[in-house]
Amino acid sequence: MVNIAILGYGTVGSGVVEVLDTNGKSIAKRIGEEINIKYVLDLRDFPGDPIQEKIIHDYQTILNDDDIKIVVEVMGGIEPAFTFTKQALEAGKSVATSNKELVAKHGAELLAIAKENTVNFLFEASVGGGIPIIRPLIASLTADEIVEITGILNGTTNYMLTKMAHEGVSYDAILKRAQDKGYAERNPAADVKGHDACRKIAILTSLAYGKQVDSEEIYTEGITHISDIDFKYANQMGMGIKLLAIGKKVDGKIFAMVAPMMIDSEHPLYGVNGVFNAIFVHGNMLGDAMFYGRGAGKLPTASAVVADIIDEVKHIETSIKMNWSPKKLELADIGRAKHCFFVRVSGAPEAKQEVIKALFGDVRLMSVPDVSNEFGFMTERISEFEFNDKIGRIDGVITRIRAICQEDR
Amino acid sequence: MVNIAILGYGTVGSGVVEVLDTNGKSIAKRIGEEINIKYVLDLRDFPGDPIQEKIIHDYQTILNDDDIKIVVEVMGGIEPAFTFTKQALEAGKSVATSNKELVAKHGAELLAIAKENTVNFLFEASVGGGIPIIRPLIASLTADEIVEITGILNGTTNYMLTKMAHEGVSYDAILKRAQDKGYAERNPAADVKGHDACRKIAILTSLAYGKQVDSEEIYTEGITHISDIDFKYANQMGMGIKLLAIGKKVDGKIFAMVAPMMIDSEHPLYGVNGVFNAIFVHGNMLGDAMFYGRGAGKLPTASAVVADIIDEVKHIETSIKMNWSPKKLELADIGRAKHCFFVRVSGAPEAKQEVIKALFGDVRLMSVPDVSNEFGFMTERISEFEFNDKIGRIDGVITRIRAICQEDR
Repeated sequence: MVNIAILGYGTVGSGVVEVLDTNGKSIAKRIGEEINIKYVLDLRDFPGDPIQEKIIHDYQTILNDDDIKIVVEVMGGIEPAFTFTKQALEAGKSVATSNKELVAKHGAELLAIAKENTVNFLFEASVGGGIPIIRPLIASLTADEIVEITGILNGTTNYMLTKMAHEGVSYDAILKRAQDKGYAERNPAADVKGHDACRKIAILTSLAYGKQVDSEEIYTEGITHISDIDFKYANQMGMGIKLLAIGKKVDGKIFAMVAPMMIDSEHPLYGVNGVFNAIFVHGNMLGDAMFYGRGAGKLPTASAVVADIIDEVKHIETSIKMNWSPKKLELADIGRAKHCFFVRVSGAPEAKQEVIKALFGDVRLMSVPDVSNEFGFMTERISEFEFNDKIGRIDGVITRIRAICQEDR
Repeated sequence: MVNIAILGYGTVGSGVVEVLDTNGKSIAKRIGEEINIKYVLDLRDFPGDPIQEKIIHDYQTILNDDDIKIVVEVMGGIEPAFTFTKQALEAGKSVATSNKELVAKHGAELLAIAKENTVNFLFEASVGGGIPIIRPLIASLTADEIVEITGILNGTTNYMLTKMAHEGVSYDAILKRAQDKGYAERNPAADVKGHDACRKIAILTSLAYGKQVDSEEIYTEGITHISDIDFKYANQMGMGIKLLAIGKKVDGKIFAMVAPMMIDSEHPLYGVNGVFNAIFVHGNMLGDAMFYGRGAGKLPTASAVVADIIDEVKHIETSIKMNWSPKKLELADIGRAKHCFFVRVSGAPEAKQEVIKALFGDVRLMSVPDVSNEFGFMTERISEFEFNDKIGRIDGVITRIRAICQEDR
């Protein structure tokens, strides 16, 4: 029997309890060890909940209990999660976490501490919820050099963008609906401004290239400026708009970015709709692969946490090798990244087509039904620097949205 | 340095050489060990090929060389692959293979021998080519009880069905084109009759439920009877036709089947086109997940083989736990499996609608453009037994194709 302690009885914490309640017996049969929840640390009490008898309020009880081999950190946020995790690892206990903020900021450091103490620090649930991506990246795609990781890593914004694409509703209306349904928080900034996706791509890029990527250094643009009119153009071109989180190696330099982008219907991420997440990976030998599933939610996330607990049970007294050094990875200047750009301009196409063609070549100017006094066009593949320089010379630019060009596929 | 020997210098074998040539240095850096190809066993010689100096013709050289820690079996077929693999494991060498026939037939037995000798027998490339699926199944989805695995596991037939759907070409024309392009073999039976997909779902079902599934016992239907007219009906209903390989637990019983099936556009497998493969997994906690990528091809397959080699280097002198007992898994009678069924009937709908409605309820009778003197309909969810009984009472049935019902999603 392996005793574990859960830090935090919130959504994921109660999900971990539920997964072990439901599947505990079959798990024990498969791995030859029963997993027993000895403590649940929470500031609150839960009278009437079967977990109440395991609730404790003092973390020292867990730290000082040599029976506890695995600590499950599902509190979220940096503190006290960081201090608690560090102390657990130093006390010779493995830690499984779903905390993307903690992993993005301190992952490399905590892995090093885990290694020193011959225990494990695992975080499958921190990216893509229930989707297996961390373990495939470190244990399956090992024969490849990762050329590109592009993910739809935030279910809230993917739900919103999907509804906008399919139903033609406005950004404000769909945000309100997402909040009413509980998919978006009252303060939706972390989701809609792209910060959540940014932390997750920081983790994936760090693991893919073996060094620390600071999420603060990743160019991050949210979906707050995406409108129902943008989708009219996208639909007309047979394209979708997705909030993409990208880590990519181009000519030996690593670019990372979070931004809404247009993708065509041939891209594997095109069909990833609603609250689902997916991570597209391109390896230099493997070619294209994609991992798809529920990126959030109590049970899918808890399923990934429990899979980590099981892996830690299997690896008691050995440290699973992970390639993530605390050395900083220098990201390339985003200005040198090349994309196609979709642009909307106010006014009549006739009046501006000469200047546009002079700058961007023979692009097609488009109009969409029920939208007057403006038009749109898609550029060829061009660097951000060059695009920004050229676009500044056109009057009345309404918006621009990056697009994945055909030649990048 | 870890010395390995490759058995067979065919497509996959030369791919393994290429992957190690291209990525060997970065792999060595990551795992802290260089992987050195000491021998390549083949009946042929390859004068002028850099590999020629490593070519040997006698397997005993490999078996008797204590330097060889890992044997890479990429010959295909049951013999001599089985004997060679067994001998390698008994000699204390780990084996990595891409050989689905070998794994489907002798996987459990070879895993047991590997365990006895504290070495490893790994076979990621045997299912889904480069797609990581075996390792995620045994190491990531461990907190779940697997409710369903449904895969598009054969690229040749998926290419053919995709082209038939998009271009309206006939089965014979597309088979010829696939053969001309090298996607299909001159004798295409293993692909188009479903045997290849059958072996792969036998492996996945065995791993998901921990016991030996004999591929001979899996109901297997190929795509040879699918016509361009079937696709006219499917397109009109907004559905696709895919060759699906299914392992599924229903009311405690396990069903396995390979058959072409209609799926609607909301199903994650709907958008898996061309030579791509994908494996959809439903776990009781995780919900839906999907793994997508290149199911065949020299480098993707070799990438998976080399990932197994790397895992074996990391696990020298420990046996990775796999839950696949040689005990036979009793499959449920396919007659009790429930699906929807699409049916085409010759004649005028008016003449037969009464008998059809008496048997199948208020189904909609459909016609498609340019196809006269026949009609089609889709049944409700119904067991195979019941369907076969009822359909026998209708005159002029042209064909029937199973469909995944909405209520099964």
